Amino acid sequence: MQINKKRLWETIERINQIGNDPLYPERGNTRLSLSKEDLLAREFLIELMKAAGLSVKIDAVGNIIGRLEGNNQKAPVVMTGSHIDTVYDGGKFDGTLGVLGAIEAVRRLKELEIQLEHPIEVVSFTDEEGTRFGTGYIGSRAVAGELKLSTLELKDDSGITLYEALKKAGLEPEKFKECKREKKELKAFIEMHIEQGKVLEEKNLSVGVVTHIQGPVWLQVEVIGSADHAGATPMHMRKDASLAMAEMMLAVEQIAKTYDGVGTVGKLHIEPGGVNIIPGRAKFSVDVRHVDLKKRTEMIEELHLLLKKISQKRGVLVKIEVNKEVDPAKCSPALVQSIVDTCGELKIPTMTLPCGAGHDSLMMTKITEMAMIFVRSKGGISHNPLEWSSIEDCAAGTEVLFQTLYKLAK
Amino acid sequence: MQINKKRLWETIERINQIGNDPLYPERGNTRLSLSKEDLLAREFLIELMKAAGLSVKIDAVGNIIGRLEGNNQKAPVVMTGSHIDTVYDGGKFDGTLGVLGAIEAVRRLKELEIQLEHPIEVVSFTDEEGTRFGTGYIGSRAVAGELKLSTLELKDDSGITLYEALKKAGLEPEKFKECKREKKELKAFIEMHIEQGKVLEEKNLSVGVVTHIQGPVWLQVEVIGSADHAGATPMHMRKDASLAMAEMMLAVEQIAKTYDGVGTVGKLHIEPGGVNIIPGRAKFSVDVRHVDLKKRTEMIEELHLLLKKISQKRGVLVKIEVNKEVDPAKCSPALVQSIVDTCGELKIPTMTLPCGAGHDSLMMTKITEMAMIFVRSKGGISHNPLEWSSIEDCAAGTEVLFQTLYKLAK
Repeated sequence: MQINKKRLWETIERINQIGNDPLYPERGNTRLSLSKEDLLAREFLIELMKAAGLSVKIDAVGNIIGRLEGNNQKAPVVMTGSHIDTVYDGGKFDGTLGVLGAIEAVRRLKELEIQLEHPIEVVSFTDEEGTRFGTGYIGSRAVAGELKLSTLELKDDSGITLYEALKKAGLEPEKFKECKREKKELKAFIEMHIEQGKVLEEKNLSVGVVTHIQGPVWLQVEVIGSADHAGATPMHMRKDASLAMAEMMLAVEQIAKTYDGVGTVGKLHIEPGGVNIIPGRAKFSVDVRHVDLKKRTEMIEELHLLLKKISQKRGVLVKIEVNKEVDPAKCSPALVQSIVDTCGELKIPTMTLPCGAGHDSLMMTKITEMAMIFVRSKGGISHNPLEWSSIEDCAAGTEVLFQTLYKLAK
Repeated sequence: MQINKKRLWETIERINQIGNDPLYPERGNTRLSLSKEDLLAREFLIELMKAAGLSVKIDAVGNIIGRLEGNNQKAPVVMTGSHIDTVYDGGKFDGTLGVLGAIEAVRRLKELEIQLEHPIEVVSFTDEEGTRFGTGYIGSRAVAGELKLSTLELKDDSGITLYEALKKAGLEPEKFKECKREKKELKAFIEMHIEQGKVLEEKNLSVGVVTHIQGPVWLQVEVIGSADHAGATPMHMRKDASLAMAEMMLAVEQIAKTYDGVGTVGKLHIEPGGVNIIPGRAKFSVDVRHVDLKKRTEMIEELHLLLKKISQKRGVLVKIEVNKEVDPAKCSPALVQSIVDTCGELKIPTMTLPCGAGHDSLMMTKITEMAMIFVRSKGGISHNPLEWSSIEDCAAGTEVLFQTLYKLAK
């Protein structure tokens, strides 16, 4: 094996000391984008890239880009990476493995003094998760030229805009258009990531190769009823926003099952929020995904109809906004085949599979050939402190990444 | 009319400048018990009682008691009052009218130099609403000898206990047992309150006389499922705590309708709360009421069964705790008749009716004869900034209270 398994694991351990409460380690890691914890982790990453011999550049929206020069500085760049921000109470591997594995792979290419024609860039994208500002893929959108000015106006729960958070971190969000990379500048984008599902575990494989990625639609739903006294208002006279929400949540589940997709209500809030007050307002998020864009569109259409029907039945108003809508993406068949071949050469058994979660690769596919290497997740658990991939599996994925980057850049 | 309508209305206006944001007056009043706003309102009240010529005493849990001495200081006390704490975004009259109306009535008895045999005490009870610590009737429980030490350990959303909040307000919660009043000390308790329902409005009456009061049961329900990635976890593999909660909320509604009672989920929270994370935990409150104790017990039993069934079906755990359980109460028939007669003498048309909301009177009935005077609520709206009772209706109720107190104390 070319890569340094022990060093890779140590960097995973070290970055995950940030955003973890040592008194409650079982609560996992919370490094919401541009939070104090995320900024600390970014500092760690910059130092690590420098130690690996990469030249580090930070773009206007905070993407951290570590570059290993090739013999031909003008040759298209082979890009690799992922993100280091997390959800609330997240795990140690989601995103982080893709960034730290890429640094390890490139560090080894340099240490072994392997001659490369193309430059390689390791990128850590800003705010992939979207937990804080409700959208996500901020950094990769900017690189792909897909970021809109209006996205910078999104607010977190305390009213801070994404623009303000970026400014506070010393960045220059007003120059976000400068982050865009042209197609001709890039040769390929390779992202290593944990599977976050159980397929590789069921097949007893360390590594998989992704064929296509589900694209999520995120909706923000608001229900407006009437706040009244819980004791003095008979059931038939109520306009309870939270009961309408409850029916809508079950409708999301029903539609997901019917279409064989997924649908989730992960965030919700009711007002005014007193034990003895009928809720007058309810807000909730909906995350809908399908590998087939047409079916996903049908799911969203049916959801609109059902939500309207429920709101009419209960005499409440419903407002639906789209916060994110990302098309499903197909990985480059040539790259997929190349990675499968590499696994064969390395005697690492593998398989191809679709990807349920969304990733920065969804954006990168708009400007370059893209592929993803999956690493087995224990129990398929993710976005949870119990998220786990073994040191052997992380190393196997990183070794495949090492060879893949070498083949693309040589 | 004996009472001073204009002065009464001014005191209502003045106390409601506290806890209202002048920039957003439409958001109503928020004076959660022992909050900064509640403490300011308490100061206002103490000054008002002193201006009315009452001697003011504050007991160990913060009940504010203004006393008008009778010719016979040892005669049993006629007590009247209500509370000044509010729910989130509450109205101007709930509780407040009962305290300020009582002060106005007693002030007039003193101004008119009416000779009274019995002392009259106006009391403003601490934390009737229960919004902050999840239980309520704190002050009246203490007076009735029903407060338990464990109640002082209840925490608000920021982890502060009721005990700590009382201490911080300069009170002596460790001496809560000293608040208890003996049966022989009291002659009666009369509470004036807005109806918070629509019956008086439908009958076009300013004032009603309550016959019995619904008692609430408050449950705290916790559902424990498993937090997973919203994209990578197929629907059939999920243990989504919030979907179980959604079904449970609809079960509360169904049971309330079946038994012709009321049931409300007014407060809820899910964790971890990210758009792309399946909720692993959900917590919610349940408020169940019925005028018939037996039927209410059946409702709670059926709710336990249904919650268990839902949790089993969805593979989640459910924990149910009782935070409050107050028996329904019957008002004193003799007092009810006396108040009805008083209305007749004052030529204020009235009716008798049951009470849907819970009140401090539910506690006071355990140590003395109790009755309630209801004042019409516009649209039946309460626990809401749109809560409204006209100046004429507030004055009519206060006039009935004035005459009732006089008859009891003379």
